[in-house]
Amino acid sequence: MVNMYNRTSADINPYDVRPSNSSREPTAPVAVKFDKDAPYYDMSGDKYLIILNHHTFEKTKYFKRKPSTRNGTYNDEGRLRQVFDKLGFLTFVFRNLKYQDIIDRLTSIATTLDRTRTSCVCITILTHGDKGGKVFAADQPYQLSEVMDIFGKHVNLINKPKLFFVQACRGGNMDPGHTVNLSTQCDSELRNMPSYSTSEIPSCHYSSFEEVMMIMEQPQKTDASSFCLWSFLDSLKASVGCWKDPDDLDISDSQDKSFLTVPTHADTLVVCSTVEDFLSYRDGSGSWMIQALCNTILQNHESQNLLDMIIQMNRTVAYEKTTRFCKLKEMNKKKQMPETRFTLTKHLKF
Amino acid sequence: MVNMYNRTSADINPYDVRPSNSSREPTAPVAVKFDKDAPYYDMSGDKYLIILNHHTFEKTKYFKRKPSTRNGTYNDEGRLRQVFDKLGFLTFVFRNLKYQDIIDRLTSIATTLDRTRTSCVCITILTHGDKGGKVFAADQPYQLSEVMDIFGKHVNLINKPKLFFVQACRGGNMDPGHTVNLSTQCDSELRNMPSYSTSEIPSCHYSSFEEVMMIMEQPQKTDASSFCLWSFLDSLKASVGCWKDPDDLDISDSQDKSFLTVPTHADTLVVCSTVEDFLSYRDGSGSWMIQALCNTILQNHESQNLLDMIIQMNRTVAYEKTTRFCKLKEMNKKKQMPETRFTLTKHLKF
Repeated sequence: MVNMYNRTSADINPYDVRPSNSSREPTAPVAVKFDKDAPYYDMSGDKYLIILNHHTFEKTKYFKRKPSTRNGTYNDEGRLRQVFDKLGFLTFVFRNLKYQDIIDRLTSIATTLDRTRTSCVCITILTHGDKGGKVFAADQPYQLSEVMDIFGKHVNLINKPKLFFVQACRGGNMDPGHTVNLSTQCDSELRNMPSYSTSEIPSCHYSSFEEVMMIMEQPQKTDASSFCLWSFLDSLKASVGCWKDPDDLDISDSQDKSFLTVPTHADTLVVCSTVEDFLSYRDGSGSWMIQALCNTILQNHESQNLLDMIIQMNRTVAYEKTTRFCKLKEMNKKKQMPETRFTLTKHLKF
Repeated sequence: MVNMYNRTSADINPYDVRPSNSSREPTAPVAVKFDKDAPYYDMSGDKYLIILNHHTFEKTKYFKRKPSTRNGTYNDEGRLRQVFDKLGFLTFVFRNLKYQDIIDRLTSIATTLDRTRTSCVCITILTHGDKGGKVFAADQPYQLSEVMDIFGKHVNLINKPKLFFVQACRGGNMDPGHTVNLSTQCDSELRNMPSYSTSEIPSCHYSSFEEVMMIMEQPQKTDASSFCLWSFLDSLKASVGCWKDPDDLDISDSQDKSFLTVPTHADTLVVCSTVEDFLSYRDGSGSWMIQALCNTILQNHESQNLLDMIIQMNRTVAYEKTTRFCKLKEMNKKKQMPETRFTLTKHLKF
């Protein structure tokens, strides 16, 4: 059975997430309000954690070789459930879903969310991944942006924070890092110089901690052979001649104060376990990033904002984590750097 | 003359940025220290702002049509210089540089920076741009990552915050946004429904505020035809059998406390004026993002961290800025959402 939802909220129908159908008491007795000028998101309403957990994969036409089993991922799942349960999130866990099931189920959840009662949705993806935003379903790779669009563009979640925590590789590169001598901090004592360039994964070695190993196809096309509209449009501009003065561009003084239009991609945060092109690390006790994130949130959520906690998580992974193998030098002493991107318009405190 | 450096520090040789050769008093009388456990970056040392300002472009083989002139960009440049001068940054301004000049000059600066005295480097790029991380030099497009790598990977800047502020388009899409009724916040009053999908730029209209308009070539290849190493490596793993137990992975307890290895991509922040695929807006008084960023920093730098100020900048651009034209409905009422990504390991206060 590949489809699971959290046993701590076992009688929630995944296709009807209204609190009235939940085993938990509703956390939002009144509607969640959006205050344009409030510095913090209103987190008093219902909060949802959706975990897409991938442990095993299938051999399909999309995978020439079956992706490796992700040992330790159930420890990530368990820790996430523990921490977000404490934060008052309702949790759904889906294990080893195929691509179409992921799209169908997430779309169904997003559609069912009660706009007036929902404060926040957090989607956690634990899987293999690759360059260019690819993450792996049980049967095929897909674009992370597909999942983000389901929630990011849904009308029920306008003005609500949409959080994505993605534990997955983003390529096969390994990073030896830079080493500094903390007592002198002199350039001459940088042990790794000049080896601060990244190295391709060696073809004859293997890490039990990899999220995915793959030799990539063609790098992205970057030539400038596009058809450009500039000159055509310049001449059009000259012929139309009805352009507002620049001073008129900002309509903040003249718009109807009862309505606010916000950009489609606002209020989103994505934490990736690693920077583009690089490996992520995981062992039997879970992944570096998810474990550090959960520990940091558990210890600091009452006093710190989400971005502050992410900086602390970054520090833990960047400073304290290093691969260690007994014989395979090429895989040894490698570093991992999580990367976060956001379009938040307010602070977030759990 | 296309190469400029800031007149406020006019006798600084751009190829020798040591404070001893500056007109300003050195701000770092003692070496900048890295304290692994400090929550904040040490900003007491020398801080540099480098502005790559692009107003006019050349007709070359890389541009089928000459990119449009970026009116208003000198207001962005002036405002940046004003704000960062107040923050104690030494500023270099390079105007309308060609690609190779950009690479040469930035490499030269990065190489010359004094590791023991430098606290922070901030690179601001004001130009046209396109999908996939492209930004435009005077003569050709190049990858933003090329500039990032010059500073991001330089040994002189290990553990120092490297900030990138990029005012440029990232594609030709326009965003009508979502509109909410602030008094009722009911779903039924969402004026834009169901128009929350993004729209391609209309081929017969033109905005004087565009950063770049371009019909893109092929979308990125996303198939999974890569050659995978999994099975080969799985069998190798079985044959080697020397893997450490997972508990041994974290070497934090056993490593030499005098040395710290940090990931190559740590301590970087990139603020892009818009999300991927979308237009950025600018008028004769400057660009929305740079002007909002400068205003926010000027008003709040004494009390707020950088990430807090970026959230505030996001709010200003997202909530208060909307395009307005007299006759061209297709270009009217469009929104812009800045996006920030970071690998910071400490808080940053200017």
